[in-house]
Amino acid sequence: MQDVYPNDQHGAVNHPEPRNHPGAHGKTVWIIAEGYLPAPGPRPDNPALSSHEAACVLNTGDRTANLTITLFFTDREPSGPYQVSVPPRRTLHLRFDDLKDPEPVPRETDFASLIESDKPVVVQHTRLDARLGSLALMTTMAYGENR
Amino acid sequence: MQDVYPNDQHGAVNHPEPRNHPGAHGKTVWIIAEGYLPAPGPRPDNPALSSHEAACVLNTGDRTANLTITLFFTDREPSGPYQVSVPPRRTLHLRFDDLKDPEPVPRETDFASLIESDKPVVVQHTRLDARLGSLALMTTMAYGENR
Amino acid sequence: MQDVYPNDQHGAVNHPEPRNHPGAHGKTVWIIAEGYLPAPGPRPDNPALSSHEAACVLNTGDRTANLTITLFFTDREPSGPYQVSVPPRRTLHLRFDDLKDPEPVPRETDFASLIESDKPVVVQHTRLDARLGSLALMTTMAYGENR
Amino acid sequence: MQDVYPNDQHGAVNHPEPRNHPGAHGKTVWIIAEGYLPAPGPRPDNPALSSHEAACVLNTGDRTANLTITLFFTDREPSGPYQVSVPPRRTLHLRFDDLKDPEPVPRETDFASLIESDKPVVVQHTRLDARLGSLALMTTMAYGENR
Repeated sequence: MQDVYPNDQHGAVNHPEPRNHPGAHGKTVWIIAEGYLPAPGPRPDNPALSSHEAACVLNTGDRTANLTITLFFTDREPSGPYQVSVPPRRTLHLRFDDLKDPEPVPRETDFASLIESDKPVVVQHTRLDARLGSLALMTTMAYGENR
Repeated sequence: MQDVYPNDQHGAVNHPEPRNHPGAHGKTVWIIAEGYLPAPGPRPDNPALSSHEAACVLNTGDRTANLTITLFFTDREPSGPYQVSVPPRRTLHLRFDDLKDPEPVPRETDFASLIESDKPVVVQHTRLDARLGSLALMTTMAYGENR
Repeated sequence: MQDVYPNDQHGAVNHPEPRNHPGAHGKTVWIIAEGYLPAPGPRPDNPALSSHEAACVLNTGDRTANLTITLFFTDREPSGPYQVSVPPRRTLHLRFDDLKDPEPVPRETDFASLIESDKPVVVQHTRLDARLGSLALMTTMAYGENR
Repeated sequence: MQDVYPNDQHGAVNHPEPRNHPGAHGKTVWIIAEGYLPAPGPRPDNPALSSHEAACVLNTGDRTANLTITLFFTDREPSGPYQVSVPPRRTLHLRFDDLKDPEPVPRETDFASLIESDKPVVVQHTRLDARLGSLALMTTMAYGENR
Protein backbone atom coordinates (compact mmCIF):
# COMPACT_ATOMS: atom_id res chain seq x y z
CA MET A 1 0.00 0.00 0.00
CA GLN A 2 1.38 3.37 -0.91
CA ASP A 3 1.27 6.11 1.71
CA VAL A 4 1.92 8.99 -0.63
CA TYR A 5 -0.74 10.67 -2.69
CA PRO A 6 1.13 11.22 -5.94
CA ASN A 7 1.18 14.42 -7.91
CA ASP A 8 -0.53 13.80 -11.21
CA GLN A 9 0.38 15.39 -14.49
CA HIS A 10 -1.95 18.29 -13.75
CA GLY A 11 -0.08 19.11 -10.57
CA ALA A 12 -2.87 18.03 -8.23
CA VAL A 13 -2.20 18.93 -4.61
CA ASN A 14 -0.52 16.50 -2.24
CA HIS A 15 -2.74 15.36 0.61
CA PRO A 16 -0.58 15.09 3.71
CA GLU A 17 -2.98 13.02 5.82
CA PRO A 18 -1.64 9.50 6.24
CA ARG A 19 -4.48 8.12 8.45
CA ASN A 20 -5.94 4.80 7.53
CA HIS A 21 -7.08 6.02 4.16
CA PRO A 22 -4.45 8.29 2.60
CA GLY A 23 -6.03 11.35 1.04
CA ALA A 24 -9.52 10.23 1.98
CA HIS A 25 -12.16 12.67 3.22
CA GLY A 26 -15.75 12.19 4.26
CA LYS A 27 -17.77 9.48 5.92
CA THR A 28 -18.81 5.89 5.29
CA VAL A 29 -22.61 6.06 5.67
CA TRP A 30 -24.75 8.55 3.76
CA ILE A 31 -28.51 8.98 3.64
CA ILE A 32 -30.78 10.81 1.20
CA ALA A 33 -34.27 10.85 2.69
CA GLU A 34 -35.89 12.45 -0.37
CA GLY A 35 -36.06 10.48 -3.57
CA TYR A 36 -38.38 10.74 -6.57
CA LEU A 37 -37.82 10.25 -10.27
CA PRO A 38 -40.12 12.68 -12.08
CA ALA A 39 -41.38 11.91 -15.56
CA PRO A 40 -38.60 12.75 -18.06
CA GLY A 41 -40.36 15.73 -19.65
CA PRO A 42 -40.36 16.83 -23.29
CA ARG A 43 -36.70 15.92 -24.04
CA PRO A 44 -36.48 12.25 -22.99
CA ASP A 45 -33.58 11.56 -25.37
CA ASN A 46 -31.38 14.32 -23.94
CA PRO A 47 -29.90 13.00 -20.68
CA ALA A 48 -28.67 16.45 -19.61
CA LEU A 49 -32.08 18.13 -20.05
CA SER A 50 -34.49 15.38 -19.04
CA SER A 51 -35.55 14.84 -15.42
CA HIS A 52 -33.05 12.95 -13.32
CA GLU A 53 -31.91 12.45 -9.78
CA ALA A 54 -28.30 11.84 -8.83
CA ALA A 55 -26.10 10.93 -5.89
CA CYS A 56 -22.79 12.64 -6.63
CA VAL A 57 -19.98 10.76 -4.89
CA LEU A 58 -16.40 11.97 -4.44
CA ASN A 59 -13.60 9.61 -3.48
CA THR A 60 -10.53 11.75 -2.75
CA GLY A 61 -8.60 8.77 -1.39
CA ASP A 62 -6.08 6.55 -3.13
CA ARG A 63 -8.08 3.33 -2.91
CA THR A 64 -11.30 2.28 -4.63
CA ALA A 65 -14.47 2.93 -2.61
CA ASN A 66 -17.01 0.11 -2.85
CA LEU A 67 -20.55 1.34 -2.29
CA THR A 68 -23.66 -0.59 -1.33
CA ILE A 69 -26.93 1.23 -1.97
CA THR A 70 -30.25 0.25 -0.41
CA LEU A 71 -33.50 1.92 -1.52
CA PHE A 72 -36.39 2.34 0.89
CA PHE A 73 -40.04 2.84 -0.02
CA THR A 74 -43.32 3.82 1.59
CA ASP A 75 -45.15 0.53 1.49
CA ARG A 76 -42.77 -2.33 0.68
CA GLU A 77 -39.49 -3.83 1.87
CA PRO A 78 -36.23 -2.19 0.75
CA SER A 79 -34.65 -2.85 -2.62
CA GLY A 80 -31.01 -3.74 -3.09
CA PRO A 81 -28.18 -4.10 -2.61
CA TYR A 82 -27.01 -2.08 -5.58
CA GLN A 83 -23.21 -2.32 -5.92
CA VAL A 84 -21.17 0.60 -7.28
CA SER A 85 -17.45 1.38 -7.17
CA VAL A 86 -15.71 4.75 -7.27
CA PRO A 87 -12.03 4.54 -8.26
CA PRO A 88 -9.32 6.43 -6.36
CA ARG A 89 -9.34 10.21 -6.94
CA ARG A 90 -12.53 10.07 -9.00
CA THR A 91 -16.06 11.39 -8.77
CA LEU A 92 -19.15 9.46 -9.82
CA HIS A 93 -22.35 11.33 -10.56
CA LEU A 94 -24.60 8.33 -10.13
CA ARG A 95 -28.03 8.73 -11.73
CA PHE A 96 -30.70 6.71 -9.96
CA ASP A 97 -32.33 5.95 -13.32
CA ASP A 98 -29.12 4.10 -14.25
CA LEU A 99 -29.56 1.58 -11.41
CA LYS A 100 -30.81 -1.65 -12.97
CA ASP A 101 -29.66 -4.55 -10.78
CA PRO A 102 -31.44 -6.05 -8.86
CA GLU A 103 -34.28 -3.90 -10.30
CA PRO A 104 -34.79 -0.45 -11.85
CA VAL A 105 -35.90 2.41 -9.62
CA PRO A 106 -39.62 3.00 -10.19
CA ARG A 107 -40.58 6.43 -11.59
CA GLU A 108 -43.00 8.78 -9.86
CA THR A 109 -42.62 6.84 -6.61
CA ASP A 110 -41.37 8.15 -3.24
CA PHE A 111 -38.16 6.50 -2.14
CA ALA A 112 -35.09 7.15 0.02
CA SER A 113 -31.56 5.81 -0.12
CA LEU A 114 -28.86 4.52 2.20
CA ILE A 115 -25.34 4.54 0.77
CA GLU A 116 -22.68 2.56 2.65
CA SER A 117 -19.02 2.69 1.61
CA ASP A 118 -15.97 0.74 2.72
CA LYS A 119 -13.87 3.93 2.40
CA PRO A 120 -14.69 7.53 3.35
CA VAL A 121 -16.50 9.43 0.58
CA VAL A 122 -18.71 12.52 0.29
CA VAL A 123 -22.23 12.32 -1.18
CA GLN A 124 -24.36 15.17 -2.54
CA HIS A 125 -27.95 14.79 -3.75
CA THR A 126 -29.25 16.64 -6.84
CA ARG A 127 -32.48 16.56 -8.81
CA LEU A 128 -33.32 18.15 -12.13
CA ASP A 129 -37.06 18.30 -12.80
CA ALA A 130 -37.96 18.91 -16.44
CA ARG A 131 -41.54 17.66 -16.40
CA LEU A 132 -43.02 20.94 -17.60
CA GLY A 133 -40.26 21.83 -20.06
CA SER A 134 -38.42 24.49 -18.09
CA LEU A 135 -35.87 23.33 -15.52
CA ALA A 136 -36.09 23.18 -11.74
CA LEU A 137 -33.04 22.22 -9.69
CA MET A 138 -32.38 21.27 -6.09
CA THR A 139 -29.34 20.00 -4.23
CA THR A 140 -28.17 19.20 -0.72
CA MET A 141 -25.31 17.43 0.95
CA ALA A 142 -26.57 14.03 2.05
CA TYR A 143 -26.63 13.21 5.77
CA GLY A 144 -23.34 11.54 6.71
CA GLU A 145 -22.35 9.23 9.56
CA ASN A 146 -19.49 6.94 10.33
CA ARG A 147 -20.33 3.32 10.85
CA MET B 1 -36.87 -8.07 19.95
CA GLN B 2 -34.96 -9.32 16.95
CA ASP B 3 -31.35 -8.31 16.68
CA VAL B 4 -30.92 -9.21 13.06
CA TYR B 5 -31.91 -7.01 10.17
CA PRO B 6 -33.41 -9.57 7.83
CA ASN B 7 -32.73 -9.84 4.15
CA ASP B 8 -35.93 -9.12 2.29
CA GLN B 9 -37.03 -10.69 -0.95
CA HIS B 10 -35.23 -7.97 -2.89
CA GLY B 11 -31.95 -8.84 -1.24
CA ALA B 12 -31.65 -5.66 0.83
CA VAL B 13 -28.30 -5.32 2.52
CA ASN B 14 -27.76 -6.54 6.07
CA HIS B 15 -27.00 -3.75 8.52
CA PRO B 16 -24.41 -5.08 10.94
CA GLU B 17 -24.78 -2.41 13.64
CA PRO B 18 -26.38 -3.92 16.73
CA ARG B 19 -26.44 -0.74 18.93
CA ASN B 20 -29.61 0.09 20.73
CA HIS B 21 -31.57 0.46 17.54
CA PRO B 22 -30.55 -2.25 15.06
CA GLY B 23 -30.07 -0.86 11.57
CA ALA B 24 -31.03 2.64 12.68
CA HIS B 25 -29.24 5.74 11.37
CA GLY B 26 -29.74 9.41 12.04
CA LYS B 27 -30.82 11.53 14.98
CA THR B 28 -33.85 12.01 17.19
CA VAL B 29 -34.45 15.78 16.91
CA TRP B 30 -34.76 17.58 13.57
CA ILE B 31 -35.54 21.21 12.79
CA ILE B 32 -36.70 22.91 9.60
CA ALA B 33 -36.50 26.67 10.17
CA GLU B 34 -38.09 27.56 6.82
CA GLY B 35 -41.72 26.71 6.24
CA TYR B 36 -44.30 28.18 3.87
CA LEU B 37 -47.12 26.62 1.91
CA PRO B 38 -47.43 28.59 -1.35
CA ALA B 39 -50.78 28.83 -3.13
CA PRO B 40 -51.28 25.58 -5.10
CA GLY B 41 -50.96 27.14 -8.56
CA PRO B 42 -52.87 26.28 -11.75
CA ARG B 43 -53.04 22.48 -11.17
CA PRO B 44 -54.61 22.21 -7.71
CA ASP B 45 -56.01 18.73 -8.41
CA ASN B 46 -52.62 17.24 -9.36
CA PRO B 47 -50.75 16.56 -6.10
CA ALA B 48 -47.42 15.99 -7.90
CA LEU B 49 -47.55 19.29 -9.80
CA SER B 50 -49.23 21.64 -7.31
CA SER B 51 -47.25 23.53 -4.68
CA HIS B 52 -46.32 21.51 -1.64
CA GLU B 53 -43.81 21.28 1.15
CA ALA B 54 -42.60 18.01 2.59
CA ALA B 55 -40.51 16.58 5.40
CA CYS B 56 -39.07 13.37 3.97
CA VAL B 57 -38.31 10.95 6.79
CA LEU B 58 -36.28 7.75 6.52
CA ASN B 59 -36.39 5.08 9.22
CA THR B 60 -33.69 2.52 8.39
CA GLY B 61 -34.15 0.72 11.71
CA ASP B 62 -36.19 -2.36 12.52
CA ARG B 63 -38.62 -0.68 14.89
CA THR B 64 -41.36 1.87 14.26
CA ALA B 65 -40.31 5.50 14.75
CA ASN B 66 -42.95 7.60 16.48
CA LEU B 67 -42.69 11.27 15.55
CA THR B 68 -44.06 14.32 17.33
CA ILE B 69 -44.17 17.47 15.19
CA THR B 70 -44.54 20.99 16.59
CA LEU B 71 -45.11 23.96 14.29
CA PHE B 72 -43.85 27.42 15.23
CA PHE B 73 -45.13 30.72 13.90
CA THR B 74 -44.19 34.39 13.86
CA ASP B 75 -46.88 35.80 16.10
CA ARG B 76 -48.70 33.05 18.00
CA GLU B 77 -47.94 30.06 20.22
CA PRO B 78 -46.84 26.78 18.58
CA SER B 79 -49.29 24.31 17.07
CA GLY B 80 -49.23 20.61 17.81
CA PRO B 81 -48.39 17.99 18.68
CA TYR B 82 -48.92 16.29 15.35
CA GLN B 83 -48.34 12.54 15.70
CA VAL B 84 -46.90 10.51 12.83
CA SER B 85 -45.35 7.02 12.67
CA VAL B 86 -42.81 5.64 10.24
CA PRO B 87 -42.70 1.83 10.13
CA PRO B 88 -39.41 -0.10 10.19
CA ARG B 89 -37.39 0.11 6.94
CA ARG B 90 -39.77 2.62 5.41
CA THR B 91 -39.66 6.23 4.22
CA LEU B 92 -42.47 8.73 4.69
CA HIS B 93 -42.61 11.80 2.46
CA LEU B 94 -44.84 13.80 4.78
CA ARG B 95 -46.60 16.70 3.10
CA PHE B 96 -47.35 19.52 5.49
CA ASP B 97 -50.67 20.14 3.74
CA ASP B 98 -51.71 16.65 4.87
CA LEU B 99 -51.40 17.56 8.55
CA LYS B 100 -54.94 18.05 9.88
CA ASP B 101 -54.94 17.23 13.61
CA PRO B 102 -55.00 19.31 15.79
CA GLU B 103 -55.37 21.86 12.95
CA PRO B 104 -54.39 22.29 9.30
CA VAL B 105 -51.21 24.21 8.45
CA PRO B 106 -52.22 27.68 7.26
CA ARG B 107 -51.26 28.55 3.67
CA GLU B 108 -49.13 31.56 2.75
CA THR B 109 -47.94 31.86 6.35
CA ASP B 110 -44.38 31.68 7.67
CA PHE B 111 -43.80 28.72 9.96
CA ALA B 112 -41.03 26.40 11.17
CA SER B 113 -41.08 22.84 12.46
CA LEU B 114 -39.56 20.73 15.20
CA ILE B 115 -39.66 16.97 14.63
CA GLU B 116 -38.90 14.72 17.60
CA SER B 117 -38.61 10.96 17.19
CA ASP B 118 -38.27 8.12 19.70
CA LYS B 119 -35.91 6.33 17.29
CA PRO B 120 -33.11 7.70 15.08
CA VAL B 121 -34.34 8.91 11.69
CA VAL B 122 -33.13 11.24 8.94
CA VAL B 123 -35.22 14.23 7.78
CA GLN B 124 -34.90 16.19 4.53
CA HIS B 125 -36.95 19.28 3.67
CA THR B 126 -38.31 19.89 0.16
CA ARG B 127 -40.60 22.48 -1.39
CA LEU B 128 -42.16 22.58 -4.83
CA ASP B 129 -43.53 26.00 -5.76
CA ALA B 130 -45.99 25.98 -8.66
CA ARG B 131 -47.70 29.31 -8.05
CA LEU B 132 -46.82 30.72 -11.45
CA GLY B 133 -47.29 27.51 -13.43
CA SER B 134 -43.66 26.52 -13.98
CA LEU B 135 -41.91 24.63 -11.19
CA ALA B 136 -39.36 25.82 -8.66
CA LEU B 137 -37.72 23.33 -6.30
CA MET B 138 -35.59 23.54 -3.20
CA THR B 139 -34.27 21.00 -0.72
CA THR B 140 -31.98 20.71 2.27
CA MET B 141 -31.18 18.23 4.97
CA ALA B 142 -32.92 19.40 8.13
CA TYR B 143 -30.80 20.36 11.16
CA GLY B 144 -30.35 17.29 13.36
CA GLU B 145 -29.55 16.85 17.04
CA ASN B 146 -29.75 14.10 19.58
CA ARG B 147 -31.95 14.69 22.56
CA MET C 1 -36.92 31.83 35.38
CA GLN C 2 -39.38 29.11 34.60
CA ASP C 3 -38.00 25.63 34.03
CA VAL C 4 -41.10 24.20 32.45
CA TYR C 5 -42.02 24.64 28.80
CA PRO C 6 -45.75 25.21 29.07
CA ASN C 7 -48.37 23.56 26.97
CA ASP C 8 -50.04 26.20 24.86
CA GLN C 9 -53.67 26.25 23.85
CA HIS C 10 -52.84 24.25 20.72
CA GLY C 11 -51.36 21.46 22.77
CA ALA C 12 -47.75 22.04 21.74
CA VAL C 13 -45.41 19.30 22.91
CA ASN C 14 -43.55 19.56 26.19
CA HIS C 15 -39.80 19.79 25.77
CA PRO C 16 -38.22 17.78 28.54
CA GLU C 17 -34.67 19.13 28.28
CA PRO C 18 -33.90 21.35 31.25
CA ARG C 19 -30.32 22.32 30.22
CA ASN C 20 -29.34 25.94 30.42
CA HIS C 21 -31.93 26.98 27.90
CA PRO C 22 -35.17 25.08 28.46
CA GLY C 23 -36.63 23.84 25.20
CA ALA C 24 -33.82 25.38 23.17
CA HIS C 25 -32.29 23.62 20.15
CA GLY C 26 -29.55 24.62 17.76
CA LYS C 27 -26.37 26.64 17.94
CA THR C 28 -25.28 30.18 18.70
CA VAL C 29 -23.18 31.04 15.61
CA TRP C 30 -24.49 30.64 12.06
CA ILE C 31 -22.90 31.52 8.73
CA ILE C 32 -24.39 31.96 5.26
CA ALA C 33 -21.50 32.28 2.81
CA GLU C 34 -23.74 33.00 -0.20
CA GLY C 35 -25.64 36.28 -0.29
CA TYR C 36 -27.06 38.26 -3.20
CA LEU C 37 -30.22 40.31 -3.57
CA PRO C 38 -31.33 39.95 -7.18
CA ALA C 39 -33.34 42.70 -8.86
CA PRO C 40 -36.98 42.37 -7.74
CA GLY C 41 -38.37 41.31 -11.11
CA PRO C 42 -41.70 42.22 -12.72
CA ARG C 43 -43.80 42.17 -9.50
CA PRO C 44 -41.89 44.55 -7.20
CA ASP C 45 -45.01 45.38 -5.17
CA ASN C 46 -45.77 41.75 -4.30
CA PRO C 47 -43.41 40.74 -1.50
CA ALA C 48 -44.20 37.03 -1.89
CA LEU C 49 -43.44 36.95 -5.63
CA SER C 50 -40.58 39.43 -5.96
CA SER C 51 -36.95 38.43 -5.50
CA HIS C 52 -35.85 38.13 -1.91
CA GLU C 53 -33.34 36.42 0.31
CA ALA C 54 -34.12 35.31 3.85
CA ALA C 55 -32.49 33.92 6.95
CA CYS C 56 -35.22 31.86 8.61
CA VAL C 57 -34.56 31.64 12.35
CA LEU C 58 -36.31 29.31 14.80
CA ASN C 59 -36.12 29.87 18.55
CA THR C 60 -37.68 26.81 20.22
CA GLY C 61 -36.57 27.94 23.68
CA ASP C 62 -38.50 29.82 26.33
CA ARG C 63 -36.35 32.96 26.34
CA THR C 64 -35.88 35.66 23.73
CA ALA C 65 -32.90 35.13 21.40
CA ASN C 66 -30.98 38.32 20.65
CA LEU C 67 -29.20 38.16 17.30
CA THR C 68 -26.33 40.22 16.00
CA ILE C 69 -25.83 40.09 12.23
CA THR C 70 -22.65 41.14 10.43
CA LEU C 71 -22.52 41.37 6.65
CA PHE C 72 -19.28 40.73 4.77
CA PHE C 73 -18.41 41.94 1.28
CA THR C 74 -15.83 41.36 -1.43
CA ASP C 75 -14.01 44.64 -1.33
CA ARG C 76 -14.92 46.63 1.80
CA GLU C 77 -15.05 46.20 5.57
CA PRO C 78 -18.07 44.42 7.11
CA SER C 79 -21.38 46.14 7.74
CA GLY C 80 -23.25 45.93 11.03
CA PRO C 81 -24.08 45.09 13.66
CA TYR C 82 -27.71 44.58 12.75
CA GLN C 83 -29.74 43.74 15.87
CA VAL C 84 -32.75 41.42 15.70
CA SER C 85 -34.71 39.57 18.40
CA VAL C 86 -36.69 36.36 18.13
CA PRO C 87 -39.22 35.85 20.95
CA PRO C 88 -39.55 32.52 22.78
CA ARG C 89 -41.21 29.75 20.73
CA ARG C 90 -41.32 31.89 17.60
CA THR C 91 -39.82 31.82 14.11
CA LEU C 92 -38.59 34.87 12.23
CA HIS C 93 -38.23 34.71 8.46
CA LEU C 94 -35.85 37.64 8.22
CA ARG C 95 -35.64 39.19 4.77
CA PHE C 96 -32.29 40.79 4.10
CA ASP C 97 -34.00 43.58 2.17
CA ASP C 98 -35.73 44.54 5.44
CA LEU C 99 -32.41 45.29 7.14
CA LYS C 100 -32.05 49.09 7.27
CA ASP C 101 -29.90 49.99 10.29
CA PRO C 102 -27.02 50.81 10.11
CA GLU C 103 -27.51 50.67 6.33
CA PRO C 104 -29.59 48.80 3.73
CA VAL C 105 -28.13 45.74 2.06
CA PRO C 106 -26.99 46.70 -1.43
CA ARG C 107 -28.76 44.93 -4.32
CA GLU C 108 -26.92 42.93 -6.97
CA THR C 109 -23.84 42.77 -4.74
CA ASP C 110 -22.09 39.66 -3.39
CA PHE C 111 -22.21 39.44 0.38
CA ALA C 112 -22.12 36.86 3.19
CA SER C 113 -23.51 36.92 6.71
CA LEU C 114 -22.53 35.96 10.24
CA ILE C 115 -25.40 35.56 12.70
CA GLU C 116 -24.53 35.38 16.40
CA SER C 117 -27.18 34.65 19.02
CA ASP C 118 -27.12 34.72 22.82
CA LYS C 119 -29.40 31.63 22.86
CA PRO C 120 -29.37 28.52 20.67
CA VAL C 121 -31.35 28.92 17.46
CA VAL C 122 -31.48 27.26 14.03
CA VAL C 123 -30.93 29.24 10.80
CA GLN C 124 -31.91 28.27 7.26
CA HIS C 125 -31.05 30.30 4.16
CA THR C 126 -33.53 30.75 1.29
CA ARG C 127 -33.56 32.79 -1.90
CA LEU C 128 -36.37 33.41 -4.36
CA ASP C 129 -35.17 34.79 -7.69
CA ALA C 130 -37.91 36.40 -9.79
CA ARG C 131 -35.75 38.50 -12.10
CA LEU C 132 -37.05 36.91 -15.28
CA GLY C 133 -40.66 36.53 -14.18
CA SER C 134 -40.77 32.82 -13.40
CA LEU C 135 -39.54 31.69 -9.98
CA ALA C 136 -36.29 30.02 -9.00
CA LEU C 137 -35.78 28.82 -5.42
CA MET C 138 -32.86 27.60 -3.36
CA THR C 139 -32.41 26.75 0.30
CA THR C 140 -29.85 25.29 2.69
CA MET C 141 -29.31 24.99 6.38
CA ALA C 142 -26.74 27.60 7.37
CA TYR C 143 -23.40 26.45 8.80
CA GLY C 144 -23.69 26.31 12.60
CA GLU C 145 -21.11 26.47 15.39
CA ASN C 146 -21.14 27.06 19.09
CA ARG C 147 -19.19 30.03 20.35
CA MET D 1 -0.18 39.62 15.04
CA GLN D 2 -3.10 41.58 16.33
CA ASP D 3 -5.44 39.87 18.76
CA VAL D 4 -8.25 42.36 18.50
CA TYR D 5 -10.85 42.36 15.75
CA PRO D 6 -11.25 46.07 15.13
CA ASN D 7 -14.52 47.88 14.76
CA ASP D 8 -14.74 49.20 11.23
CA GLN D 9 -16.42 52.39 10.15
CA HIS D 10 -19.70 50.56 9.69
CA GLY D 11 -19.71 49.45 13.31
CA ALA D 12 -19.09 45.77 12.58
CA VAL D 13 -19.43 43.58 15.64
CA ASN D 14 -16.42 42.69 17.76
CA HIS D 15 -15.59 39.00 17.70
CA PRO D 16 -14.53 37.99 21.19
CA GLU D 17 -12.97 34.62 20.36
CA PRO D 18 -9.20 34.78 20.74
CA ARG D 19 -8.36 31.15 19.73
CA ASN D 20 -5.64 30.58 17.23
CA HIS D 21 -7.42 32.52 14.53
CA PRO D 22 -9.10 35.60 16.00
CA GLY D 23 -12.61 36.05 14.64
CA ALA D 24 -12.33 32.97 12.46
CA HIS D 25 -15.22 30.55 12.01
CA GLY D 26 -15.58 27.39 9.98
CA LYS D 27 -13.33 24.57 8.90
CA THR D 28 -10.20 24.03 6.81
CA VAL D 29 -11.32 21.31 4.37
CA TRP D 30 -14.47 21.60 2.25
CA ILE D 31 -15.86 19.30 -0.40
CA ILE D 32 -18.46 19.85 -3.14
CA ALA D 33 -19.26 16.46 -4.67
CA GLU D 34 -21.52 17.90 -7.38
CA GLY D 35 -19.99 20.02 -10.10
CA TYR D 36 -21.15 20.81 -13.63
CA LEU D 37 -20.89 23.93 -15.74
CA PRO D 38 -24.01 24.02 -17.92
CA ALA D 39 -23.93 25.78 -21.29
CA PRO D 40 -24.29 29.54 -20.69
CA GLY D 41 -27.76 29.88 -22.20
CA PRO D 42 -29.19 32.75 -24.27
CA ARG D 43 -27.47 35.61 -22.37
CA PRO D 44 -23.78 34.60 -22.48
CA ASP D 45 -22.59 38.21 -22.13
CA ASN D 46 -24.53 38.82 -18.91
CA PRO D 47 -22.55 37.17 -16.09
CA ALA D 48 -25.44 37.49 -13.61
CA LEU D 49 -27.97 35.80 -15.89
CA SER D 50 -25.86 33.20 -17.68
CA SER D 51 -25.24 29.73 -16.25
CA HIS D 52 -22.58 29.57 -13.60
CA GLU D 53 -21.44 27.57 -10.61
CA ALA D 54 -19.82 29.13 -7.57
CA ALA D 55 -18.07 28.26 -4.34
CA CYS D 56 -18.93 31.12 -1.99
CA VAL D 57 -16.23 31.44 0.66
CA LEU D 58 -16.42 33.53 3.83
CA ASN D 59 -13.33 34.39 5.85
CA THR D 60 -14.51 36.03 9.08
CA GLY D 61 -11.01 35.98 10.57
CA ASP D 62 -8.41 38.71 10.68
CA ARG D 63 -5.80 36.94 8.55
CA THR D 64 -5.80 36.05 4.85
CA ALA D 65 -7.05 32.55 4.04
CA ASN D 66 -5.02 30.81 1.34
CA LEU D 67 -7.05 28.21 -0.53
CA THR D 68 -5.91 25.29 -2.64
CA ILE D 69 -8.56 23.83 -4.92
CA THR D 70 -8.35 20.40 -6.55
CA LEU D 71 -10.89 19.31 -9.16
CA PHE D 72 -11.81 15.65 -9.56
CA PHE D 73 -13.31 14.02 -12.64
CA THR D 74 -14.96 10.79 -13.70
CA ASP D 75 -12.29 9.37 -15.93
CA ARG D 76 -9.00 11.24 -15.51
CA GLU D 77 -6.60 12.30 -12.77
CA PRO D 78 -7.43 15.43 -10.72
CA SER D 79 -6.71 18.95 -11.93
CA GLY D 80 -4.97 21.56 -9.86
CA PRO D 81 -3.85 22.99 -7.61
CA TYR D 82 -5.77 26.20 -8.18
CA GLN D 83 -4.61 28.88 -5.72
CA VAL D 84 -7.01 31.51 -4.39
CA SER D 85 -6.77 33.91 -1.45
CA VAL D 86 -9.58 35.45 0.61
CA PRO D 87 -8.53 38.55 2.55
CA PRO D 88 -9.45 39.04 6.23
CA ARG D 89 -13.13 39.83 6.83
CA ARG D 90 -14.04 39.32 3.19
CA THR D 91 -16.19 36.98 1.13
CA LEU D 92 -15.25 35.59 -2.26
CA HIS D 93 -17.96 34.24 -4.55
CA LEU D 94 -15.62 32.17 -6.68
CA ARG D 95 -17.04 31.21 -10.05
CA PHE D 96 -15.62 27.96 -11.35
CA ASP D 97 -15.64 29.37 -14.90
CA ASP D 98 -13.13 31.97 -13.68
CA LEU D 99 -10.55 29.31 -12.81
CA LYS D 100 -7.91 29.37 -15.55
CA ASP D 101 -4.61 28.17 -14.09
CA PRO D 102 -3.45 25.42 -14.51
CA GLU D 103 -6.38 24.88 -16.92
CA PRO D 104 -9.99 26.04 -17.39
CA VAL D 105 -12.80 23.92 -16.00
CA PRO D 106 -14.39 22.00 -18.87
CA ARG D 107 -18.06 22.77 -19.58
CA GLU D 108 -20.78 20.12 -19.58
CA THR D 109 -18.51 17.72 -17.71
CA ASP D 110 -19.09 16.11 -14.30
CA PHE D 111 -16.57 17.19 -11.71
CA ALA D 112 -16.19 17.60 -7.94
CA SER D 113 -13.98 19.86 -5.85
CA LEU D 114 -11.82 19.74 -2.75
CA ILE D 115 -11.06 23.10 -1.15
CA GLU D 116 -8.29 23.21 1.46
CA SER D 117 -7.57 26.37 3.44
CA ASP D 118 -4.79 27.31 5.84
CA LYS D 119 -7.34 29.21 7.98
CA PRO D 120 -10.93 28.32 8.94
CA VAL D 121 -13.49 29.43 6.35
CA VAL D 122 -17.06 28.51 5.37
CA VAL D 123 -17.94 27.33 1.86
CA GLN D 124 -21.37 27.25 0.19
CA HIS D 125 -22.05 25.81 -3.27
CA THR D 126 -24.46 27.48 -5.71
CA ARG D 127 -25.42 26.87 -9.32
CA LEU D 128 -27.53 28.98 -11.66
CA ASP D 129 -28.70 27.09 -14.72
CA ALA D 130 -29.89 29.32 -17.58
CA ARG D 131 -29.60 26.84 -20.44
CA LEU D 132 -33.25 27.10 -21.42
CA GLY D 133 -33.65 30.81 -20.81
CA SER D 134 -35.51 30.78 -17.50
CA LEU D 135 -33.48 30.40 -14.31
CA ALA D 136 -33.02 27.37 -12.07
CA LEU D 137 -31.11 27.70 -8.81
CA MET D 138 -29.66 25.32 -6.28
CA THR D 139 -27.46 25.75 -3.21
CA THR D 140 -26.03 23.79 -0.31
CA MET D 141 -23.44 24.21 2.35
CA ALA D 142 -20.38 22.25 1.28
CA TYR D 143 -19.22 19.30 3.42
CA GLY D 144 -16.68 20.57 5.96
CA GLU D 145 -13.91 18.84 7.90
CA ASN D 146 -10.88 19.88 9.84
CA ARG D 147 -7.57 18.61 8.61
